[in-house]
Amino acid sequence: MIAQRARFDLVVRDGLVAVGDATVRIDLGIRDGCVRAIAERLEDATQIVDAQGRLVLPGGVDAHCHLGQPNYGAACADDFRSGTLSAACGGTTTIVPFAMAHASDPLAETVAAYRLKAEGRALIDYAIHPTIQAASAQMLERDLPDLIRGGYASLKIFTTYDDFRLGDPEILAILKVAAVHGALVMVHAENDAIIAMLKQDLLGRGLVAPRFHAKARPPIAESEAIHRIASFAELTGAEVLIVHVSSRVGLEEVMRARARGVSIHAETCPQYLLLTEADLDRDGLEGAKFMCSPPLRTVDDQEALWAGMAQGSVAIYSSDHSPYRLAGPDGKLRQPLLFSEGYLKGRISLAQFIALSSTNAAERHGIAPQKGSIAIGGDGDLVIWDQERETTVTRDLLHDNTDHTPYEGMRVRGWPVTTIARGEVIVDDGRVLGVAGRGRFVPSKARTAS
Amino acid sequence: MIAQRARFDLVVRDGLVAVGDATVRIDLGIRDGCVRAIAERLEDATQIVDAQGRLVLPGGVDAHCHLGQPNYGAACADDFRSGTLSAACGGTTTIVPFAMAHASDPLAETVAAYRLKAEGRALIDYAIHPTIQAASAQMLERDLPDLIRGGYASLKIFTTYDDFRLGDPEILAILKVAAVHGALVMVHAENDAIIAMLKQDLLGRGLVAPRFHAKARPPIAESEAIHRIASFAELTGAEVLIVHVSSRVGLEEVMRARARGVSIHAETCPQYLLLTEADLDRDGLEGAKFMCSPPLRTVDDQEALWAGMAQGSVAIYSSDHSPYRLAGPDGKLRQPLLFSEGYLKGRISLAQFIALSSTNAAERHGIAPQKGSIAIGGDGDLVIWDQERETTVTRDLLHDNTDHTPYEGMRVRGWPVTTIARGEVIVDDGRVLGVAGRGRFVPSKARTAS
Amino acid sequence: MIAQRARFDLVVRDGLVAVGDATVRIDLGIRDGCVRAIAERLEDATQIVDAQGRLVLPGGVDAHCHLGQPNYGAACADDFRSGTLSAACGGTTTIVPFAMAHASDPLAETVAAYRLKAEGRALIDYAIHPTIQAASAQMLERDLPDLIRGGYASLKIFTTYDDFRLGDPEILAILKVAAVHGALVMVHAENDAIIAMLKQDLLGRGLVAPRFHAKARPPIAESEAIHRIASFAELTGAEVLIVHVSSRVGLEEVMRARARGVSIHAETCPQYLLLTEADLDRDGLEGAKFMCSPPLRTVDDQEALWAGMAQGSVAIYSSDHSPYRLAGPDGKLRQPLLFSEGYLKGRISLAQFIALSSTNAAERHGIAPQKGSIAIGGDGDLVIWDQERETTVTRDLLHDNTDHTPYEGMRVRGWPVTTIARGEVIVDDGRVLGVAGRGRFVPSKARTAS
Amino acid sequence: MIAQRARFDLVVRDGLVAVGDATVRIDLGIRDGCVRAIAERLEDATQIVDAQGRLVLPGGVDAHCHLGQPNYGAACADDFRSGTLSAACGGTTTIVPFAMAHASDPLAETVAAYRLKAEGRALIDYAIHPTIQAASAQMLERDLPDLIRGGYASLKIFTTYDDFRLGDPEILAILKVAAVHGALVMVHAENDAIIAMLKQDLLGRGLVAPRFHAKARPPIAESEAIHRIASFAELTGAEVLIVHVSSRVGLEEVMRARARGVSIHAETCPQYLLLTEADLDRDGLEGAKFMCSPPLRTVDDQEALWAGMAQGSVAIYSSDHSPYRLAGPDGKLRQPLLFSEGYLKGRISLAQFIALSSTNAAERHGIAPQKGSIAIGGDGDLVIWDQERETTVTRDLLHDNTDHTPYEGMRVRGWPVTTIARGEVIVDDGRVLGVAGRGRFVPSKARTAS
Repeated sequence: MIAQRARFDLVVRDGLVAVGDATVRIDLGIRDGCVRAIAERLEDATQIVDAQGRLVLPGGVDAHCHLGQPNYGAACADDFRSGTLSAACGGTTTIVPFAMAHASDPLAETVAAYRLKAEGRALIDYAIHPTIQAASAQMLERDLPDLIRGGYASLKIFTTYDDFRLGDPEILAILKVAAVHGALVMVHAENDAIIAMLKQDLLGRGLVAPRFHAKARPPIAESEAIHRIASFAELTGAEVLIVHVSSRVGLEEVMRARARGVSIHAETCPQYLLLTEADLDRDGLEGAKFMCSPPLRTVDDQEALWAGMAQGSVAIYSSDHSPYRLAGPDGKLRQPLLFSEGYLKGRISLAQFIALSSTNAAERHGIAPQKGSIAIGGDGDLVIWDQERETTVTRDLLHDNTDHTPYEGMRVRGWPVTTIARGEVIVDDGRVLGVAGRGRFVPSKARTAS
Repeated sequence: MIAQRARFDLVVRDGLVAVGDATVRIDLGIRDGCVRAIAERLEDATQIVDAQGRLVLPGGVDAHCHLGQPNYGAACADDFRSGTLSAACGGTTTIVPFAMAHASDPLAETVAAYRLKAEGRALIDYAIHPTIQAASAQMLERDLPDLIRGGYASLKIFTTYDDFRLGDPEILAILKVAAVHGALVMVHAENDAIIAMLKQDLLGRGLVAPRFHAKARPPIAESEAIHRIASFAELTGAEVLIVHVSSRVGLEEVMRARARGVSIHAETCPQYLLLTEADLDRDGLEGAKFMCSPPLRTVDDQEALWAGMAQGSVAIYSSDHSPYRLAGPDGKLRQPLLFSEGYLKGRISLAQFIALSSTNAAERHGIAPQKGSIAIGGDGDLVIWDQERETTVTRDLLHDNTDHTPYEGMRVRGWPVTTIARGEVIVDDGRVLGVAGRGRFVPSKARTAS
Repeated sequence: MIAQRARFDLVVRDGLVAVGDATVRIDLGIRDGCVRAIAERLEDATQIVDAQGRLVLPGGVDAHCHLGQPNYGAACADDFRSGTLSAACGGTTTIVPFAMAHASDPLAETVAAYRLKAEGRALIDYAIHPTIQAASAQMLERDLPDLIRGGYASLKIFTTYDDFRLGDPEILAILKVAAVHGALVMVHAENDAIIAMLKQDLLGRGLVAPRFHAKARPPIAESEAIHRIASFAELTGAEVLIVHVSSRVGLEEVMRARARGVSIHAETCPQYLLLTEADLDRDGLEGAKFMCSPPLRTVDDQEALWAGMAQGSVAIYSSDHSPYRLAGPDGKLRQPLLFSEGYLKGRISLAQFIALSSTNAAERHGIAPQKGSIAIGGDGDLVIWDQERETTVTRDLLHDNTDHTPYEGMRVRGWPVTTIARGEVIVDDGRVLGVAGRGRFVPSKARTAS
Repeated sequence: MIAQRARFDLVVRDGLVAVGDATVRIDLGIRDGCVRAIAERLEDATQIVDAQGRLVLPGGVDAHCHLGQPNYGAACADDFRSGTLSAACGGTTTIVPFAMAHASDPLAETVAAYRLKAEGRALIDYAIHPTIQAASAQMLERDLPDLIRGGYASLKIFTTYDDFRLGDPEILAILKVAAVHGALVMVHAENDAIIAMLKQDLLGRGLVAPRFHAKARPPIAESEAIHRIASFAELTGAEVLIVHVSSRVGLEEVMRARARGVSIHAETCPQYLLLTEADLDRDGLEGAKFMCSPPLRTVDDQEALWAGMAQGSVAIYSSDHSPYRLAGPDGKLRQPLLFSEGYLKGRISLAQFIALSSTNAAERHGIAPQKGSIAIGGDGDLVIWDQERETTVTRDLLHDNTDHTPYEGMRVRGWPVTTIARGEVIVDDGRVLGVAGRGRFVPSKARTAS
């Protein structure tokens, strides 16, 4: 007797699914990795996961993280295996790390090499942002358009760092190509000359403690660079995303530009919402854990960023996780921190939690609606949240290869207890059920020209 | 033999449903008036409507219209019967008109009397905004809280018009009650004293042609009032919606307040997007068709409003339809105008079209997720759009009882060919299939206190 | 033999006179009360005062003070005699107090009665601001124009206080008259309804300590009222002066309006520059000394006001002295406080000190160039400053009839050692040489219509 | 018998001299080139010029002009002889042209060589702005401080033009030196990369007519550069002057920075106030007369600049005269244009006319109070204005070596009929009485460190 295949491979039963800021109790049916039905009641499934009336939200999309990246000469403690494991355990089902390479390396080779690092290791799906560090005629006319068409429609550029930064002509040229071919340009926006001058001053005076890191990268370095990028975006019509916005004055420049119709978005990260520059003053090496760029700011800046998320001027919440910059939290913490400190504390609504940590990133980076929402035909990436669970952050909690966390001791309410990726339960109540290497590359699609 | 009832009363098959700015082709199953299933393929239905790959969007919500209202001593040409018929033919499945009465009438009686006017006449569902024209102690302490709890959590106040306007103390008192009890306060924001002074000046100089109507209500009358309301909202914590924002300077005040975290939203209307004060200069009585308050503005103001919709600072798009103020278009035109001039011309995305003309209004006015989106458990209010159809606006096209339209001759692309309300096809290809009186009252629910 | 009259009645020799931010050493010759010559060397004088190279600046103009005023039912501790004595000892040679009366009193009688109080008592010259508390047709058409033409071209209105406040229609009507007839309108700008609501709240909760005074009058009450007045000024074309601006947000509204060309100016006072709301928390009755309206604010607000003075958006520095509101300092302290804390500490330049404490007030209030600068034909009102002298503020130092000062113990650098009014040395090194009653009324002239 | 020298070399009798916006009728006495007395009546003079009750204002200071400059490979039609003659005939008594050289030339040699060009040729006094085109360590540490101390405390830098522009690191380094040593830094602020990109685009499409010059240098190129310079000024504490501000958005950036306390000033020029980009569309070569950089803008930009002058955010009005860029008018027209179009048309007050065209330039560029005001000890630089005279601009009217003027045909009211420089009547009713070469170098003094 031949067993007939059930209608669904998996039904998530009795979940509380968000509709705007409201919720409805329903079943979700998945087959062949995609959501196929959303209904009050679904039957006929190979596997049933009972959500028992808990929140079932789209899997998180962490669109800013660094994995397996030969950066700054340091060995990268995290690779795709450990990084995606952490992310999955924290309710993230898609990551978008950066493919960074030497300026002279051909772009196509860089992304190909980077994809090799993910293969066989990634537990969850991934798109890739190539970092653009040059703007030769061939690149602008051929390589970049090819790249964008080939599934890499989300690019990253820098205005600072000796090895990465681009000058105004290069940035304008890249934005022009991005506008024509429908790519998003992510920008690390800090004025390099300001930082260089201040660094030299501080160094000359022997001021090298962690807290001087913040002094060398003041908010005005960020606001200047954001205003410049906004001007370039306005001129070229390109869509830009300012990554890791850290300051009130920086966010104000994003908002001013948006108000006059510029296609500019802001991303921020947990460290700018939860830590401050005061943390850099901790004793000894402790302060060094809190170093990141842009640096931690003040309570006033935190308030501006929380308000920006609630009001819509901050669109995306990413981890900026990187094993050698500890302030950007382990991927496991990204979503729980926002759920606990943002949603449950009433700073943002449930709809905003989902938009900030998942949907907006998927849309802006060209992987929606496959990722970032619960939609028929979209991937069955779901997370069941236990709103009641309380967790204390400890080193042991985290899966990555770093040996300490600036968030140590923080109490977090709510936890993503079950992570489902393309219809497969990959993490359940702390146990990892998915197999490294199951994660696939998701192409970032170009916008259609407007 | 007893025929078993099918699983669904209606399946809308093969519709193109929006997920963010993308679309997926799916079936929608409705039973007992509500959406029960969204899936790639649904069977077992009493009735099947084949969308043939056309867009299937949530029914429109027109949250600002005037019906059956004994206003200004004029007989009101439109009642619930004609007004909801027009709306339904234009793809709107819920309206939220105003219950206006004398200041001395008890609120509970006013809304009860107004509901009587709808009963037996309304073709589609309706919530009701009571207009608040006084603020006695009893009203603030008892009547208003009762009203809010009783399904009228969206109130309307005026800063102008002799019979309606409230002073600062009354407005503050009402906002305070609204903040505590979770109501939205809609505000017609124009400075009354400015208008009175300018009117008297113009009258004294014999300047009474339609175009002087605009001179008597300059943008600064709007921006002053909006700034004041924003200050009051900031102080009290109330959520406010500035209705029919008409000018760049007015919208700027909304944006400034939002940027500092005030819970303030802007609504605009087709007339401010599509007509200008130049229309007031037309010959003879023709100009009078274009009178409305706030008055029509300039092309620059139009651009600011379109940009505001694209960027999110304008949240709601309503008709402000009123049979005696023709600029606010017949309910039949509201959605087609935005679809044609906004979405198809690329000024706003598909997601923005839905949010502006349906979802946001439902959410802000407390009738989501029952209304305003395609959600399991929500009402089966759906509209099938034919993107290819071109229509020329003529008087004969419109269902309402007015005898001319300022939009006459305009060519509109895209049309809502089928309107489904609570699972019933009420309009199909121009034929009205629903019966007057089938529309029901939808309570506007209070926000939970934050 | 008949002695011939000398060319000058008085020569001030070897003074350091400001030219912009620079200074030149010169002589000043006065005859019949007016400056007749400015030269490197002047001879032939009846009296010579040797400045010995010290700064010789225009006498101060305190354009906001309260004297001999039957206010709030309290006896007014200061009259014209004591008030002008204090002012003269502090380097002020002209004051502009308010003529306040009941709304029903005819304006002409009010100002006549008030001038009687000054006669025989005033040591220095004075103009008068009538307070306008009503706007009847007769007042707007006849009394107010008469008043303006008659030497009272600087009016004062209030948006708060039960006995004084005007509504929007009255304010607009008065601004219109002021614009036509060339008067300045000073405005005490705080939203009355906000204050009333908050006061009632606090009272209901038994919160009556001095620091709750500040809670009842938050910065938003000021910024709302300023924005409204700015809108009215923009509409009518009237020139307005917001008195005692106290907050960053209030000043921002002035700046925004100025940026779009509105004729609006800001005044601030010592208490907002030197004291903060923390002073209201002092023990027992001590806190009550620091009550004023608008209330004291924060260090951040102080910084905004200092920056505004340095940058030009604050035009006038007045005392708002009033014997029953102690925060507004004794007239004797007004100029020394700004000289010490502003000029000598480098927050403002010498030119700004002169403009803020003298010239701008004279110009805006219509008494320039007779007052407010060292100009040929202008009054010989001069003050010799000893930049080196240090003074500690004590109760005994002050001449007025109050028995304590919030500035007690403050060390002040620089002192106005000699005060010359219309060519007469009226104070010299602490000795009062002028006779009460020598002060004369100075008409405030209307601007010529633009 | 030995004739005794009179007390004054020159008395200007019965002039109407400004005191704020008022005027007084007085005599001015000059000896040895400097004003020695200002009085109601002065006798005992070698020469008497009777002003007959006309306005006597400080001689103009044109702080932005190009003379005898080997620029762009073109022969410079104007040298110090013709340029200062034109200026003097137009009521200007001091000019501050630029010493421009190759980046590799030592600064000291550049200014020395440039002073040689002035010697024997200049009819009026002059200061000099050196243009800084490099920022080597030696320059920053030694040459620049030496230069500033040596009478060149007003420097000029560019953000555009291949031969002149500096990058961010150089600009920051120069601003730092300027802040320490008290120099003003003038900045030609347009984003070079934007211009380069747009130029290449236009060139590639064969669009080379004069009006495309404006398209290649849009307002956003100006506003971006101004925001950047303002950020750098805020960071370093340097005082900067944005020269020839041309657009509303550019001026807004200056105002925003000023509002937060940045020491930044704006200069504008006649062409931006009186001409528009429409002039570039004139037939044939006619349009080319109107080319300048930044380019001419719109009527809206003009209005913003006029409002900025009236309100104080534009501090300086210069000609930017250059014989090869005709839009910047002949020095002879600079003051009459502002007098006629600004003061007499009521857009700015008399005090503002003087401040904009003379005093502010003298103060900011470090040559006050010797220049820019009528002050004892200051230079006897005076201009008698005939307010009634009407003049039509023709080529023949102008003294410079260019053969056409964009202002041709304009009717100008008011004319500077007599120009007195250091007490010498050098122009009287059109006749030039002064001798070329009488003009002297005036050192620009450093501010004292704050």
